[in-house]
Amino acid sequence: MLVGGQRYRAIWRAPSTGRVQVIDQRILPHRFEIVDVTTFDEFVATIRDMVVRGAPLIGVTAAYGMAVAMKEDPSDAGMAEASNQLKGARPTAVNLAWAVDRVATEIAGLTPSDRALAAMTLADNMANEDVETNAQIGRNGVAVIEEIARSKPADEPVRILTHCNAGWLATVDRGTATAPIYEAHERGMKIEVWVDETRPRNQGASLTCWELQHNKIPHRLIVDNAGGHLMQRGMVDVVIVGSDRTTAAGDVCNKIGTYLKALAAKDNGVPFYAAMPTSTIDQAIIDGLAEIPIEERGAQEVTHMPGRLESGEMVSAMICPDGTLASNPAFDVTPRRLVTGIITENGIWKPNTG
Amino acid sequence: MLVGGQRYRAIWRAPSTGRVQVIDQRILPHRFEIVDVTTFDEFVATIRDMVVRGAPLIGVTAAYGMAVAMKEDPSDAGMAEASNQLKGARPTAVNLAWAVDRVATEIAGLTPSDRALAAMTLADNMANEDVETNAQIGRNGVAVIEEIARSKPADEPVRILTHCNAGWLATVDRGTATAPIYEAHERGMKIEVWVDETRPRNQGASLTCWELQHNKIPHRLIVDNAGGHLMQRGMVDVVIVGSDRTTAAGDVCNKIGTYLKALAAKDNGVPFYAAMPTSTIDQAIIDGLAEIPIEERGAQEVTHMPGRLESGEMVSAMICPDGTLASNPAFDVTPRRLVTGIITENGIWKPNTG
Repeated sequence: MLVGGQRYRAIWRAPSTGRVQVIDQRILPHRFEIVDVTTFDEFVATIRDMVVRGAPLIGVTAAYGMAVAMKEDPSDAGMAEASNQLKGARPTAVNLAWAVDRVATEIAGLTPSDRALAAMTLADNMANEDVETNAQIGRNGVAVIEEIARSKPADEPVRILTHCNAGWLATVDRGTATAPIYEAHERGMKIEVWVDETRPRNQGASLTCWELQHNKIPHRLIVDNAGGHLMQRGMVDVVIVGSDRTTAAGDVCNKIGTYLKALAAKDNGVPFYAAMPTSTIDQAIIDGLAEIPIEERGAQEVTHMPGRLESGEMVSAMICPDGTLASNPAFDVTPRRLVTGIITENGIWKPNTG
Repeated sequence: MLVGGQRYRAIWRAPSTGRVQVIDQRILPHRFEIVDVTTFDEFVATIRDMVVRGAPLIGVTAAYGMAVAMKEDPSDAGMAEASNQLKGARPTAVNLAWAVDRVATEIAGLTPSDRALAAMTLADNMANEDVETNAQIGRNGVAVIEEIARSKPADEPVRILTHCNAGWLATVDRGTATAPIYEAHERGMKIEVWVDETRPRNQGASLTCWELQHNKIPHRLIVDNAGGHLMQRGMVDVVIVGSDRTTAAGDVCNKIGTYLKALAAKDNGVPFYAAMPTSTIDQAIIDGLAEIPIEERGAQEVTHMPGRLESGEMVSAMICPDGTLASNPAFDVTPRRLVTGIITENGIWKPNTG
């Protein structure tokens, strides 16, 4: 998508060197910096430290990580070790394990000296597949927005609430939850997006707002507390979020706070959709509450807030008394009974209609 | 309650000078500073700029403001002007109008020269009444906590979630939502409090955590997004919040985001209580959604976050791209169908049992 009028993906290979490059998402929206990811250790750190985040982008990054690992040590032992390290970098994202296993399966039968090139080619293909998948999620999901638009006066925008960043920065391009939004915008439809700031890491405020601003989509930032009130007042037409992991039955695990928005949507008759590639759907699990382990992240994400001072300096400011204990569950599970539909590249799946 | 081991109220008269003093709540928890409020204009600013906040404390502050206004201009016109200015300083808080009208009614029949002293005496009485009211809210509300404690193993704490700050800093002393918590603690019960940070102004992180820390109540800070997840996992036994205005039918207007917690409580069978003095109940209105105007505050509260750097410097950091538009509704309405009970000084009112 566009950044300052130029087209970018969230991960790519530099045309001159073939090296993998990503956007450092930790310093957005305040600084736009491109990072080379060269060694295998750098790939693990890039995922673990959230230089990149978002299930699909983590998956593609991990695929490139496998390719680089095969340059460093293409033995069976090296492959197993690389798989384990990558999978351990972010335990909740099912795409991570999926992508690593896909590469490993593909190259396992090759002689070690052929593995690096094969893995790199596969990673390139997976990146391109992700873009096509998201474009298709957009084409499928735009039907939801079009249907709402038809029920409203022509001059009124369709108002979409989204949580966290399931935008193009969470994928290789176009995003999952944002793919229908970009599709609608490109078709000339009138839309407006409510962006949840999404504490504790503020990916809505810092990433989704930045994306939408650069791509000229009308939007407004709100605190995570506000969405229920807006739905009560009829100011939200549809909720579209992403997912880090969805069960075979349709329970949606996504950024902490998603469940609260789903409850408010249900209470106010607002349709609630999750958009994701089918690779996010974990066919091995049914009951999200019972079966999905929730990552507990560091307390400092809660006790401190990153931001930019007027001077331009980027800081982390403490928002509570010294010595305050905090709890920081990173995801929650939205039970399928609250989910109107799941938008994938294969169409819209309504888990409550059997 | 205790600050650094010493007893304080949130508003008092200095013993030596008789002047009104308050704690500057805008710089807590990072600095503890006492402010003299001397002129009538200072009283209006103290309320408007949220040096003090919280419905009951605003009411008592306004009562003192009326007394000071009567020193400056005790005429009928002066009284009317002071009433209007104070009521306009924070439009949502019903206690503000209630307190101002109570003082005005009491002194209207007096000769102007007697008004200042009578108003000051009344304001002192209202401060003392508030403390007694909250103590009684605590004694009534502790029954809810005791009942839960009886249903749990003796070594497990009762886990209470609260939103925003309905603590002693929001009143003259003891607080409303926190009054049952302090009462339970003083009775030696084992309790733990989940504190919602409460964006955008973060009164949970900055004020409630500070209060609980100084009064040695075990607590843990969470982002506003986390409460639903904790309730799903059985980690919350009861929700107790305050209220800025409650209708005669039991609809609870409180800090933005309260409604989302009430939905989650309902969905998980967790009892949801609002604690308030009866003066917060507006007998003139029934339907909170239709009848309570919601204050829209400045966008900067959403786009910027106040905090303290490691150097000790207090800053306001921008958390989104330059030029981002934000919407900032300050309150929401929790419909009575989601309210288990309303704890007042007169007992516990269950609005759904007729």
